[in-house]
Amino acid sequence: MTILPAVSDLAAYCLDVARRARAAARMLAITSAAQKDAWLYAAAKALIERNAEILAANEKDATAAIGAGLTAAQLDRLRLTPARLRGAANGLREIAALPDPVGQIRSSTVRPNGLEVHKVGAPLGVIFFIYESRPNVTVDAAGLCVKSGNAVILRGGREAFHSNAALHQILADCLADAGLPADAVQLVTTTDRAAVGHFLKLNEWIDLAIPRGGEGLIRRVAEEARMPVLKHYKGNCHVYVEKSADLEKAEAIVVNGKCQRPGVCNAVESLLVDAAVAPAFLPRIAAALRKRGVELRGCPITREYVPDAIAATEEDFAAEYLDLILSVKVVNNLDEAVAHINRYGSGHTDAIVTNDLTAARRFTAAVDSAAVMVNASTRFNDGGELGLGAEIGISTDKFHARGPCGLLELTSYKYVVYGEGQVRGE
Amino acid sequence: MTILPAVSDLAAYCLDVARRARAAARMLAITSAAQKDAWLYAAAKALIERNAEILAANEKDATAAIGAGLTAAQLDRLRLTPARLRGAANGLREIAALPDPVGQIRSSTVRPNGLEVHKVGAPLGVIFFIYESRPNVTVDAAGLCVKSGNAVILRGGREAFHSNAALHQILADCLADAGLPADAVQLVTTTDRAAVGHFLKLNEWIDLAIPRGGEGLIRRVAEEARMPVLKHYKGNCHVYVEKSADLEKAEAIVVNGKCQRPGVCNAVESLLVDAAVAPAFLPRIAAALRKRGVELRGCPITREYVPDAIAATEEDFAAEYLDLILSVKVVNNLDEAVAHINRYGSGHTDAIVTNDLTAARRFTAAVDSAAVMVNASTRFNDGGELGLGAEIGISTDKFHARGPCGLLELTSYKYVVYGEGQVRGE
Repeated sequence: MTILPAVSDLAAYCLDVARRARAAARMLAITSAAQKDAWLYAAAKALIERNAEILAANEKDATAAIGAGLTAAQLDRLRLTPARLRGAANGLREIAALPDPVGQIRSSTVRPNGLEVHKVGAPLGVIFFIYESRPNVTVDAAGLCVKSGNAVILRGGREAFHSNAALHQILADCLADAGLPADAVQLVTTTDRAAVGHFLKLNEWIDLAIPRGGEGLIRRVAEEARMPVLKHYKGNCHVYVEKSADLEKAEAIVVNGKCQRPGVCNAVESLLVDAAVAPAFLPRIAAALRKRGVELRGCPITREYVPDAIAATEEDFAAEYLDLILSVKVVNNLDEAVAHINRYGSGHTDAIVTNDLTAARRFTAAVDSAAVMVNASTRFNDGGELGLGAEIGISTDKFHARGPCGLLELTSYKYVVYGEGQVRGE
Repeated sequence: MTILPAVSDLAAYCLDVARRARAAARMLAITSAAQKDAWLYAAAKALIERNAEILAANEKDATAAIGAGLTAAQLDRLRLTPARLRGAANGLREIAALPDPVGQIRSSTVRPNGLEVHKVGAPLGVIFFIYESRPNVTVDAAGLCVKSGNAVILRGGREAFHSNAALHQILADCLADAGLPADAVQLVTTTDRAAVGHFLKLNEWIDLAIPRGGEGLIRRVAEEARMPVLKHYKGNCHVYVEKSADLEKAEAIVVNGKCQRPGVCNAVESLLVDAAVAPAFLPRIAAALRKRGVELRGCPITREYVPDAIAATEEDFAAEYLDLILSVKVVNNLDEAVAHINRYGSGHTDAIVTNDLTAARRFTAAVDSAAVMVNASTRFNDGGELGLGAEIGISTDKFHARGPCGLLELTSYKYVVYGEGQVRGE
């Protein structure tokens, strides 16, 4: 694989990229929504018009990947097609249609001394975005960062290098046309892995790091970064079937959460069933899941009702299978369910199926997770489904942003105070 | 000084404190506002009723401090008086009167599929609060953390150990009376400095560290902490006198910002004057400041109008004097003022004095600071003055919280979604 261009002094290169990003961020902070949206629409158009050059670059990556022995799934993720490019272009148009979070007045008060205090959306500044494989993420990330007034430094996977370079070239050409700073979107032009380490030290120039990929990448970034990190660890999501639950809804929610897309972070990994409904529900859900090829791993009581379930271990209750496997436990009451979720869960998404309002309210208050669903599938924890628009990821942290992160979560705020000469007394 | 009690295994002690805090936090998350407020009012009352035991403990610290050679200013900060205790009690009552940020619905939407999506305030969990000297901070911090649903681990200064222990005892007694978990407010009972290092590694149990004190403490915490840190570096605050400024207001704002309380973070450290008004304004402001004993350090042009000003260096423009010293620079236009502030400032508080609306809007958008004032003193960047109520500090970061941090900034949020059996389609 060609690695281009050669970078002689890596540290100096990274510093230069970060400094240029900071300068671009200063300009982006005072760029109008109209100008940013004009760029998004122009880039969407160019992705379609210039798709031949993107597909040719992607072909180079695919050829190299086959040689390097990537799996079929990895190859599929790497592949760009006209349909996927149309999807990326539509993503940019959707971002353009969202309100600009910069300058948005989030709250206002007038103080007794007449000062008008506004809390106003402001960009974070410079974002370092590190991702693996899927090259269309290049487009999504650039669109979200620029719309939220941030300059972005994109560091894609080595295997998608040519694809990312082609996509970046188009985005950059459109920046110039729209009068936006050229350095608003930069692509790291070395595949040297040490570059990531250099960038992660530049907390004076970079305000936020966002890793998107496998757990190894995320842990490395979280450990090395000197700036805040917006990150997503695993999703060990639960459904708790409370004793007043409508068992038909419960079945639909468990089946949907486990089977609709088992490999994603908001899929269900663990089922908790109230002892009062275990005799009625467990054989029924076991049959429904068995039909769909799901392996059950249960606690001793579960196995009384579902004899073919494998005995669950402690590891099972903590596991994110991302596969057609489900751990199952019978609990005596809601508080036991909550304690189990807060102990073994990952703070991602957990659901209760219930018809009891007190139970619903206690569960939603006590479960310490980014999203808590009442009578709905865990699969709805997603920026689009919750109404945030496009998302850059789902945060399992509580600080700054929790759950799906869209434009708002890519911004900070500032206080803008208007007075007429007020000074402070004793 | 007595250091009590002896802690044999420091790491085990810290882990135990953190685990107990986590358990208390789980209970606090589902504690009603009424119960938390009952504790705040009871604690306020007890601080007054039991003030003899607090003052006796404070006397021990003061005696030891005199022996240890603390400066008069340090001694004054350490001193508790009946008036200061009344102030602390009033602080708790003010916190009780503020709305509970936990469970507060921040926004709601109904999705096309009928899902009701609420973004709801939620506690962060466990806060590790490290502070120096002033023992009344023990009371403020405990009140703010508990009201926002968080358990707090308090680590006060060695010199205030007995005072903090007496205050903590009262707060803890009232916790039990109000039915709140006893471990909601814990005081670290060893003065071994290594304890801080142990706590800062416990990111599984502690969600946030807040250092409050000198720059050395803050840097140490920021470097060692494995959890997020809410911190406040220096405040190098500017006033820019734009060419359309009302010079009388400009004078009042600069004098107030520099002289009203020179030792605080939102005091003015640097004055920027537009070249167009420099001949009229500089001699005038120099006279007003000279009268108040302020030393001026100016750029070459400033010194043409103010011959007794000392020549300013690069270091002067970056300095947080916290003293009766002011750096002064003449700039050619607003963009030069903004560039100077974004380069030398600390992102804390910066003001423009102007009568030009376009200038005001450009300045507030372009200056990358927590608070931007138009025709008002920088001294107003304070939780009370901006209407947030009591504050735990002022953040100079942009991630999570920026500017004054009150109850809202001590919380996160979660998505609570109500459905009636919805599942996700393809």
